[in-house]
Amino acid sequence: MTDRELIVLGTASQVPTRTRAHQGTVLRWGREVVLFDPGEGTQRQLTLAGISAASITRICLTHLHGDHCLGLPGVLQRMVLDGARHPVSLYFPASGQEYVDRLRQASASFGSPVVHEHPVSCDGLVEDWGAVSLHARALDHRIDAYGWRLEEPDGVRFVPARLAELGIAGPAVGLLSRQGWLDVAGRRVTLAEVSEPRPGQAFAFVMDTRLCRAAVDLAAGVDLLVCESTYVSGEEALAEQYAHLTAAQAATIARDAGARRLVLTHYSGRHPDESVFAEDAARVFPHVHAARDLDRIPVPSRR
Amino acid sequence: MTDRELIVLGTASQVPTRTRAHQGTVLRWGREVVLFDPGEGTQRQLTLAGISAASITRICLTHLHGDHCLGLPGVLQRMVLDGARHPVSLYFPASGQEYVDRLRQASASFGSPVVHEHPVSCDGLVEDWGAVSLHARALDHRIDAYGWRLEEPDGVRFVPARLAELGIAGPAVGLLSRQGWLDVAGRRVTLAEVSEPRPGQAFAFVMDTRLCRAAVDLAAGVDLLVCESTYVSGEEALAEQYAHLTAAQAATIARDAGARRLVLTHYSGRHPDESVFAEDAARVFPHVHAARDLDRIPVPSRR
Repeated sequence: MTDRELIVLGTASQVPTRTRAHQGTVLRWGREVVLFDPGEGTQRQLTLAGISAASITRICLTHLHGDHCLGLPGVLQRMVLDGARHPVSLYFPASGQEYVDRLRQASASFGSPVVHEHPVSCDGLVEDWGAVSLHARALDHRIDAYGWRLEEPDGVRFVPARLAELGIAGPAVGLLSRQGWLDVAGRRVTLAEVSEPRPGQAFAFVMDTRLCRAAVDLAAGVDLLVCESTYVSGEEALAEQYAHLTAAQAATIARDAGARRLVLTHYSGRHPDESVFAEDAARVFPHVHAARDLDRIPVPSRR
Repeated sequence: MTDRELIVLGTASQVPTRTRAHQGTVLRWGREVVLFDPGEGTQRQLTLAGISAASITRICLTHLHGDHCLGLPGVLQRMVLDGARHPVSLYFPASGQEYVDRLRQASASFGSPVVHEHPVSCDGLVEDWGAVSLHARALDHRIDAYGWRLEEPDGVRFVPARLAELGIAGPAVGLLSRQGWLDVAGRRVTLAEVSEPRPGQAFAFVMDTRLCRAAVDLAAGVDLLVCESTYVSGEEALAEQYAHLTAAQAATIARDAGARRLVLTHYSGRHPDESVFAEDAARVFPHVHAARDLDRIPVPSRR
């Protein structure tokens, strides 16, 4: 079982359908459980996906349209009911502060976790979480909207054959990792001798936007890109009018960014069959998956 | 097809489950489509039930706990998206005004219908809608909560055999109905001669409360009582602590009020099988139905 996994809670755009709940996407990334864009119904979708609300550590909102945030009050209440004792960090466009204030006090309370608010008003690094850092770029939607990128620093990983060759095992491996060297049989072995570079993984979450440079920047070289795909080719005028993407445009972003894998979501109800989105995108970028509600998608390993 | 029908959107209490969405109950009553307690996810449940949000004419909130109101923003937005052009009336406990204000502006707007707010702060008649009137009574919950009662005035209905006997047909029937009399073959026929009394129908909606007199008053002689039933017999202490009812207590209300039919909803997730609620209630009041999500229940006819 991978420790880096995407769980798709809902794939609808503005209007939910019989088979598509409103937006909601969870990324498990080591100890972080990041919830993106909790639309209405997210707390029930978490139940259907078998995810405890209490496990959530961070919540990122791309923008404050209802289909991307109306599930926030329920998720926060549910975290408490599920026994969360830790604070949760909340990232959102700073211009949406008034809506965040109302959402956080939308009903008579059953309690709330401690929420650390991070209003974002410019591009760049938002916060370093240690094992991974959060970055934002402004997208091109009808209201302020930010896309999100998670980036792991480059590191190294041990080459087991080299360790075995030098007879390094057990606690000595940890010591070598921590201090960068180890004296073995009178010789100083460096970390570089027994390891190889491990490029950091990256993830991007691009929601409601027209085609724009920021989306490509967010997705640069990511292992997994989740991208909105409201329309399909032939509906570019609608996409332009409502500031959304076609599946082929989402694929263009993935291709131009050199992403490894593209996951489509946020579909217009005019296309009940997800395969039309996958087919539209695949003409531009082959490594595409048109998500369905409750899909679980591993972040592709680098090995 | 009856023109008076209950449509159950969700039957969960605080925590939704795989099979139970949050609260949400629609009452179709002639030209009125009344939505009670839109919990989170109500707009999608409306879709699953095949009900257009644009058909809603009134919304009644018993109280402002999240599981009874967090679906309000989505329903209002959805009314506009579905093409509603009429205003909607919103009835709620006056002490919940601050939450109603936030719910109505919880996210960047796609528009809202005109909302006529009716904060309620005392028992009695709330509004006369013409064919039916709305009444409220304060319940006994942890925060201000009101139960709702719809009441149709008593009327008369024609006895077809008497009309036929006197040769009254076509437009003459309407004239007789409007003016209360009609001259037929030199004789004045009164409405009373050709009609019989038709007692007005009534409906009550009793949510989160301890057992209380107000609940019985609301349900007095109703054709249909919808009542919360969070727990079952043996869990009276929990019911008391959280200010809820057991199914048997709900049945006691129905029996003491002389209700014709009882519909149970708002179940604790500790009982996944609805039949335990029905069985618990039936020992006290036999005409009971434990609702499931998306049930449609006609208001029993008086004929």
